[in-house]
Amino acid sequence: MSPRRLEAFSDGVIAVIITIMVLSLRPPDGGSLHDLRPLVPKLSVYLLSFVFVAIYWNNHHHLMHVVDRVSGAALWANAHLLFWLSLTPAAAAWLGPHVRDKAPVAIYGAVLLGSAIAYSILTFALVSSAGSDAPIARALGRDRKAVAPLVPWISLGIYIAVALVWLVPDRRMERVLAPG
Amino acid sequence: MSPRRLEAFSDGVIAVIITIMVLSLRPPDGGSLHDLRPLVPKLSVYLLSFVFVAIYWNNHHHLMHVVDRVSGAALWANAHLLFWLSLTPAAAAWLGPHVRDKAPVAIYGAVLLGSAIAYSILTFALVSSAGSDAPIARALGRDRKAVAPLVPWISLGIYIAVALVWLVPDRRMERVLAPG
Amino acid sequence: MSPRRLEAFSDGVIAVIITIMVLSLRPPDGGSLHDLRPLVPKLSVYLLSFVFVAIYWNNHHHLMHVVDRVSGAALWANAHLLFWLSLTPAAAAWLGPHVRDKAPVAIYGAVLLGSAIAYSILTFALVSSAGSDAPIARALGRDRKAVAPLVPWISLGIYIAVALVWLVPDRRMERVLAPG
Amino acid sequence: MSPRRLEAFSDGVIAVIITIMVLSLRPPDGGSLHDLRPLVPKLSVYLLSFVFVAIYWNNHHHLMHVVDRVSGAALWANAHLLFWLSLTPAAAAWLGPHVRDKAPVAIYGAVLLGSAIAYSILTFALVSSAGSDAPIARALGRDRKAVAPLVPWISLGIYIAVALVWLVPDRRMERVLAPG
Repeated sequence: MSPRRLEAFSDGVIAVIITIMVLSLRPPDGGSLHDLRPLVPKLSVYLLSFVFVAIYWNNHHHLMHVVDRVSGAALWANAHLLFWLSLTPAAAAWLGPHVRDKAPVAIYGAVLLGSAIAYSILTFALVSSAGSDAPIARALGRDRKAVAPLVPWISLGIYIAVALVWLVPDRRMERVLAPG
Repeated sequence: MSPRRLEAFSDGVIAVIITIMVLSLRPPDGGSLHDLRPLVPKLSVYLLSFVFVAIYWNNHHHLMHVVDRVSGAALWANAHLLFWLSLTPAAAAWLGPHVRDKAPVAIYGAVLLGSAIAYSILTFALVSSAGSDAPIARALGRDRKAVAPLVPWISLGIYIAVALVWLVPDRRMERVLAPG
Repeated sequence: MSPRRLEAFSDGVIAVIITIMVLSLRPPDGGSLHDLRPLVPKLSVYLLSFVFVAIYWNNHHHLMHVVDRVSGAALWANAHLLFWLSLTPAAAAWLGPHVRDKAPVAIYGAVLLGSAIAYSILTFALVSSAGSDAPIARALGRDRKAVAPLVPWISLGIYIAVALVWLVPDRRMERVLAPG
Repeated sequence: MSPRRLEAFSDGVIAVIITIMVLSLRPPDGGSLHDLRPLVPKLSVYLLSFVFVAIYWNNHHHLMHVVDRVSGAALWANAHLLFWLSLTPAAAAWLGPHVRDKAPVAIYGAVLLGSAIAYSILTFALVSSAGSDAPIARALGRDRKAVAPLVPWISLGIYIAVALVWLVPDRRMERVLAPG
């Protein structure tokens, strides 16, 4: 299969994923700025998720750019990646109103982890279906930043850092406020 | 009509179908892992539906690849297929919380059956509008796996097998638990 | 502007319109076939709307096919058509549970009427921006069926016929059931 | 990166944004024309938002048309613009039922302001990544109307004018009705 149609279909799926996340920003019933306060953490989660999905779209594009053909295995590896990315809106919708609970933070991280693993599998499937002097193999040698499966793991690292920074002071504050 | 725009439009519709299904994975009100339990069957149904729609997208691509032109009849046969596929999110949203009821299981199977019939009709419409030495006719002779309307029926078979495996032990268990 | 990107954008919008209509087919709470009964009129309205939007997509494609360039006026005429088409899901969501009320039937018809007028305006904008020997002018002379703004009006006619057939016996029955 | 895929992805995101806004036009429970009255301000907000997003799509197309390549910075400037545009459905969903409250009017204006700033940043990122004799630089000199970051600010001006016209008589009326 030519990578062009796979690219177009993936673009369509990622465009819908990145946009329907905004549906979880349901407007408050009231009409004052005060009513908007519960939306603040949801908006932060939306921004974070938008950035993560945009990172994947960007890297997916660079990855497809150095590929000449797509094997059946790579096609399913790509569907596998889209499946994990499509869970982002659901995980974000749960995390939004529960940014201080452990389970939604962990599930959101698990979706990021699944996406990162799926991206790595896709990279290996594309490399193994191409020959050793194929553009993707040369690109992986020459310019790791563009196509290497490293980038999603950086996303996950950013997330873990953000989550730790967010959760740790909270725990300390709780201990201070409720020392008994 | 050129198959390229039909392909692009079908890609768009299938990309939206495969992604809005995730909207039925509504986050629970609570913030603990325990609150996530009702989502488990919904997630399984989502995964199953994602795989089925991905199978159709994959086969649709191979089918369009061996077609030179699309007649008016084939265009409506394609719209008919998209209609059945578009019912998948609705059937999945009903099946998700009712995986042990007969009616949602049967309706989900009926949507799969309708999609499989629609795919077969589309194949025949494309073959009959092409000549006997057209690429699609040769492809149907040479490489049935890629374009034959067999694949959707395999989806249906998988579904029936899954449904039987799922439902049969349940009935037995019910008989044990409520023997009166 | 080249008609190719206008075509691609319109395809995207129409693909989303035709697919999000299925979101109004909310699954019933119960899990029996009986619980599905309120969905029957909604499903009929969905099927009707799917066919109408598919007719527009099909005709839009034929229209764009005979156009070489798109003027600014035609671009806004196209946005105007997309606006009316985008109201179809909202009108269908109201009509679905109220197929026997006059107001939703009339509003749905008004959206069809607006779409038909918008399609006619788009045709005239494309013709007037092209010269008299442009493909679209020749096509309008030679093959009216493909591009003429007649087709949307046929949609409206079908709808009025369906609405009359549906509503008239109902009024008679009401008179019989509640003669006082 | 070639601007073609960035254009296609942006088209997909904008097509979804412009269409999911219609989901906030939830049908009323009743079936009479009277029940439709609360939808009138929502429909006005939807129309306004549709026009604003269509203006951006139109200008984005002209902007991309004079670009030969897209740098990494421009890619993220584009994602930044899409992020602001994707907030339009949420801001519109809040404004719809609260057209006479100050906070939703201000937030909607803030989203328009953010989009206008993001569009300006994108223009500068594209110009700075291209050379001084690149098509975009020449276009900015020759035909400001097509690509200059002026247009979004006009959107914002229209909005402020509409908001003032809408709100000012209302305040006066309030003073008359409740003079104490």
